[in-house]
Amino acid sequence: MGGDEAPTEPVRAAARISRSTSLELLLVGKREVIGAELARVKHEPAQITIVDAREAITMDEKPRAAIEAKPDASLLVAMRAVAAGEADALVSAGSTGALVLAAAQILPRIPGIDRAALAAVYPTRKRDSSPDPFALILDVGATVRVRSHDLLFFAYMGSAYARAVSKTARPSVGLLNMGSEANKGDAPLRQAHAWMRDDPRLNFIGNVEGNDIPTGGADVIVCEGYVGNIALKMGEGVSEVFKSLGKQAFKQRLVWRVGLMLLSRGLRRLKDITDYREYGGAPLLGFRAPVIKAHGRSGEVAIANAIKVAAKAAREGVCQEIERAVADFQARRAEAEQGAENAVAAETSSTASKEA
Amino acid sequence: MGGDEAPTEPVRAAARISRSTSLELLLVGKREVIGAELARVKHEPAQITIVDAREAITMDEKPRAAIEAKPDASLLVAMRAVAAGEADALVSAGSTGALVLAAAQILPRIPGIDRAALAAVYPTRKRDSSPDPFALILDVGATVRVRSHDLLFFAYMGSAYARAVSKTARPSVGLLNMGSEANKGDAPLRQAHAWMRDDPRLNFIGNVEGNDIPTGGADVIVCEGYVGNIALKMGEGVSEVFKSLGKQAFKQRLVWRVGLMLLSRGLRRLKDITDYREYGGAPLLGFRAPVIKAHGRSGEVAIANAIKVAAKAAREGVCQEIERAVADFQARRAEAEQGAENAVAAETSSTASKEA
Repeated sequence: MGGDEAPTEPVRAAARISRSTSLELLLVGKREVIGAELARVKHEPAQITIVDAREAITMDEKPRAAIEAKPDASLLVAMRAVAAGEADALVSAGSTGALVLAAAQILPRIPGIDRAALAAVYPTRKRDSSPDPFALILDVGATVRVRSHDLLFFAYMGSAYARAVSKTARPSVGLLNMGSEANKGDAPLRQAHAWMRDDPRLNFIGNVEGNDIPTGGADVIVCEGYVGNIALKMGEGVSEVFKSLGKQAFKQRLVWRVGLMLLSRGLRRLKDITDYREYGGAPLLGFRAPVIKAHGRSGEVAIANAIKVAAKAAREGVCQEIERAVADFQARRAEAEQGAENAVAAETSSTASKEA
Repeated sequence: MGGDEAPTEPVRAAARISRSTSLELLLVGKREVIGAELARVKHEPAQITIVDAREAITMDEKPRAAIEAKPDASLLVAMRAVAAGEADALVSAGSTGALVLAAAQILPRIPGIDRAALAAVYPTRKRDSSPDPFALILDVGATVRVRSHDLLFFAYMGSAYARAVSKTARPSVGLLNMGSEANKGDAPLRQAHAWMRDDPRLNFIGNVEGNDIPTGGADVIVCEGYVGNIALKMGEGVSEVFKSLGKQAFKQRLVWRVGLMLLSRGLRRLKDITDYREYGGAPLLGFRAPVIKAHGRSGEVAIANAIKVAAKAAREGVCQEIERAVADFQARRAEAEQGAENAVAAETSSTASKEA
């Protein structure tokens, strides 16, 4: 029921998926409204179940207040279905803030993880190093500041997700920093760098800088939510400035207008590359089931793509892979700590025996 | 002696300034090299003094090691001249890292300030709110993480500098954050927000977001070095992607090529707007004298502009204004603390008298 085009476009997307795949879909929202939309489009009734929810959270509501005021909101009912194991993944085109908060309140987290991350999936220019033009940056707003191990876990999350949904077998991972040298940044960044570098699960390429985000310096870029959010919006702002300069040029001179018209097919192609409809939304990672945030303006195709990547992430066991990586890291740390304690104990007993 | 075009272009810039202003210039570097360059251009000998320095730090040297290895480097000799009061401001087109480090080691800081900030000056699209198309963001790399009062002091620095060198009498100040609401971000960001909001010296417009950087949402944007550095490089990366897409379009189709050629004057104009030569470099603030970092590729005009803004900042008392703002803030805080202590003392004595 969330997003600008609900419920028409999400229902059409579900109908489309039911015709082309064997996926089972739960549509959560007002039964009579969804039923009426569904009656209008061709679909496989056996694959679609409507789960009734009498309320919905709108885009302009304050997330925390809305969640408290509307316990029967479609988002919360859907979250509870995932938490109860009735669904393997969740897709929403509604409020991002409400989605992140509802997941934190309702979904079980992967053991060892206490900070979820929202990843932005975005196109980069073509790269020789990767068969896929897409890249991931996380976190872009589920957190503010994070600790070293959160950054490491974000790397596990991004890596597992990129491997499952893209064509990249071993996604490159970069740590967003102020310079490429390993000693850049503060102590938590340096610790995260060392852990990623020493982790055989990760294809860690070292620190990356701000310009590596749009140019595709790494398949997965890891950072705290504060800086990820600002970098992402900086990119939007620069694109906006370019567009408004283009519009000014169009108005000012006939030759520029003709030039832009001749370029229009090229500009359209540029738009296609940056089109969020193609890559199905932003994953919210750290929970035991995949959650995909589709863009608020998503239509049928975009939401169908979001459903496909959610199903793929569930089928490929993205969350299980993250869980194994976190468990392995914690086991290694516990072992290292035990080793250090044993060394201290041995030292103490050797001192004791000498003294005796 | 630093920068790609030294010593030819800096010497030409000094000669130009000596002809058009009454400024006195110290040129620091190898006496015979600078003397030979100077002999080739028309200048006012009475306004130019050569200060001999037998070494120079190159752009590819590690700043810390270079400063230790070359105590007689032109940068260090020039810094010492400023520290000794022989010069009122410093301009360098050499290594940014060496400049920041040398200033920290040699220049006296403004009392109360222990973190200097490097500000990037950049063009934004035309704004109704401001007579000047330029905006400032600081810090962009002299710090990594900062505390609330550092952010407040960065606001004083940016505000004083913008007022002196631009046409803006009361520059608007924004705090870079993840959302416009006052409660966004972590505790240090919220504290900085509250201090800026309550400060009558500042024209604080609240939190600004990443997209407000390129679109010119504020005349002065304040942030820690880590995020400032990444946002700035993100912007460079996006511009780079746009340029390379343009180049691809040029190669691919004749109509696109013709379109780009018709647009070429418009594109050149765009380049002019983003041209660092126009606005004289990045100020390093927090010291008792203005320091201007000119772009490494600066030619005569750019360095002449850097000299002009350095002189303007010194003449307008930018550093003195920052000093007053910091002193006032500290006096207000001390008073508030004294008030709190007095209240506690009054409470204690009232309890004591009751008990007695």
